[in-house]
Amino acid sequence: MHQSAIDKAKAAAWHPDAQAGFARQLDLRIAHHLSQLSPAPARLVEAARDAMSSGKRLRPYLLHLVAGDAADGEAVLDMAVALEMVHTASLIVDDLPSMDNATLRRGRPTTHARFGEATAILTAIGLLNHAISIANGLEGMDDGQRGALVSILSGVMGWQGLVAGQELDLNGFSDEDDASGDALGRVTRINALKTGALLCAAVEAGAILAGCTDDKRSLLRRFGEDLGQAFQIADDLIDLLSDSATAGKDCGQDIGKETYLAVYGADEALRRCRALLASADEALVSAGLTPDPFRSMIDAIFAPMLDRVPQAVQKAGVA
Amino acid sequence: MHQSAIDKAKAAAWHPDAQAGFARQLDLRIAHHLSQLSPAPARLVEAARDAMSSGKRLRPYLLHLVAGDAADGEAVLDMAVALEMVHTASLIVDDLPSMDNATLRRGRPTTHARFGEATAILTAIGLLNHAISIANGLEGMDDGQRGALVSILSGVMGWQGLVAGQELDLNGFSDEDDASGDALGRVTRINALKTGALLCAAVEAGAILAGCTDDKRSLLRRFGEDLGQAFQIADDLIDLLSDSATAGKDCGQDIGKETYLAVYGADEALRRCRALLASADEALVSAGLTPDPFRSMIDAIFAPMLDRVPQAVQKAGVA
Repeated sequence: MHQSAIDKAKAAAWHPDAQAGFARQLDLRIAHHLSQLSPAPARLVEAARDAMSSGKRLRPYLLHLVAGDAADGEAVLDMAVALEMVHTASLIVDDLPSMDNATLRRGRPTTHARFGEATAILTAIGLLNHAISIANGLEGMDDGQRGALVSILSGVMGWQGLVAGQELDLNGFSDEDDASGDALGRVTRINALKTGALLCAAVEAGAILAGCTDDKRSLLRRFGEDLGQAFQIADDLIDLLSDSATAGKDCGQDIGKETYLAVYGADEALRRCRALLASADEALVSAGLTPDPFRSMIDAIFAPMLDRVPQAVQKAGVA
Repeated sequence: MHQSAIDKAKAAAWHPDAQAGFARQLDLRIAHHLSQLSPAPARLVEAARDAMSSGKRLRPYLLHLVAGDAADGEAVLDMAVALEMVHTASLIVDDLPSMDNATLRRGRPTTHARFGEATAILTAIGLLNHAISIANGLEGMDDGQRGALVSILSGVMGWQGLVAGQELDLNGFSDEDDASGDALGRVTRINALKTGALLCAAVEAGAILAGCTDDKRSLLRRFGEDLGQAFQIADDLIDLLSDSATAGKDCGQDIGKETYLAVYGADEALRRCRALLASADEALVSAGLTPDPFRSMIDAIFAPMLDRVPQAVQKAGVA
């Protein structure tokens, strides 16, 4: 057996338990934070609970892995909740009728489908502000750390983060936004803003909580960026090749959109996705983190997606 | 001539210049902050500029007056910009098709009417996050001050602020939200959340920048709360009695809504509005602030609204 295959098998054996254990802790902490929303309107609290009730919790787990055992466990959990709130808010917004107009998310009705559009928008804004307030109120931080964590959260959703990505994805690039006129540049930028930003925020928040050096933070940012690009390409492949029941969300949303897949075709998208994962892995190793739990998590996400792509491509006749 | 009338005349003589001078400084600082949005998508930047391009700048001016000359002028201006961004974001959200569905605001097309619904929502979220990032990045603050300013901004938009007020205003109170079943309680709560919260945020931010004691902050909060209630009642009167061309925004939006005016009638609403202004003034004097510029500003807002109400009520036959 090849050494990396042995490592993989070993990691896979202990990793799902660790991830599931963290997810249980996170769910308890999410419930705790949401229980403190009162006297907010009951409908908003219900919508927030519903929107936060499921999810793969990947970003919180990434934060937890990067922060490691040396960081304050309470602060890591709270910051993980804040990050999941921002992620959830971004999904609520993306799904809105005026945006992707999606009715299914994680196999369940989207927030606006269940609670109406106005309540969905207000819930998203409430979650964003709540996330800021969690980061701003973290105990046991020095003030530089607390300010940096608030800055990560306000940045990830803002003009140079998710909001920008969604605007470009929906309404396209103007000449001012895209001087180069290069399709790869456009796709990479949207993916970086829409997917990479939150993954980078997760690893950067973890690095701040762990007190990492700037060099290490910069390598971890590259890891987050590569992972984000890979994730978005894999998501596009799933969108094209799945039906909604399998994916747990509305599919076929990307038809007509400029994605890596649409520009370069499925084979090249698959190759690019694998190359990005290799680059992410390299950054991780260079940063000096124990790669096993990361590899196991990444493999658990990507393997089921990528393994079926070649057959599906053949079957669907997608080039 | 009665002494208070003399004071009023004196205040009115110098006040408009001071307020206009501050507004000019504020507009320059707004332009400076918006010029730093790039490389945000050009459409978002344009929508943000458009939404921020006009307004009475009351909340920034209130902050400036409360902060006084002792506070750091740069920090006051930056925080005033942040507050105006939050206010603007809340107006963009309130005007959305799924909410008040307003096409006019400040005499011009609303953000969604001009840029589309998706861009409007994204611009509002971008402005909120930008406001947080301004407060979080203020220089020359001690960390308690900076944290308190971030907390004011995240709180004012959140579950116990504008988002809650808008939800209750649009979708009403559930049994859980309103144990007492009292109309005055419901109206007061919505007004506190929708209008009072931002005025309180303005005076509290000013108080923090001025380094006020807790007692003074608490009196200033009462000033903000009373002013907010008075403002909302006057706004409801205007909504009922004006046409859109005069008000510069869509009118008749409140028909069927539970407002103080709808519950108690125009005469009682007018009386209540005046009583609240008197109570606000008392809090201001108790807090030890020089009341003249506040009185002049408040008079300039309310006098034109309230002076025409009695005739308009008679003319329209509203009881």
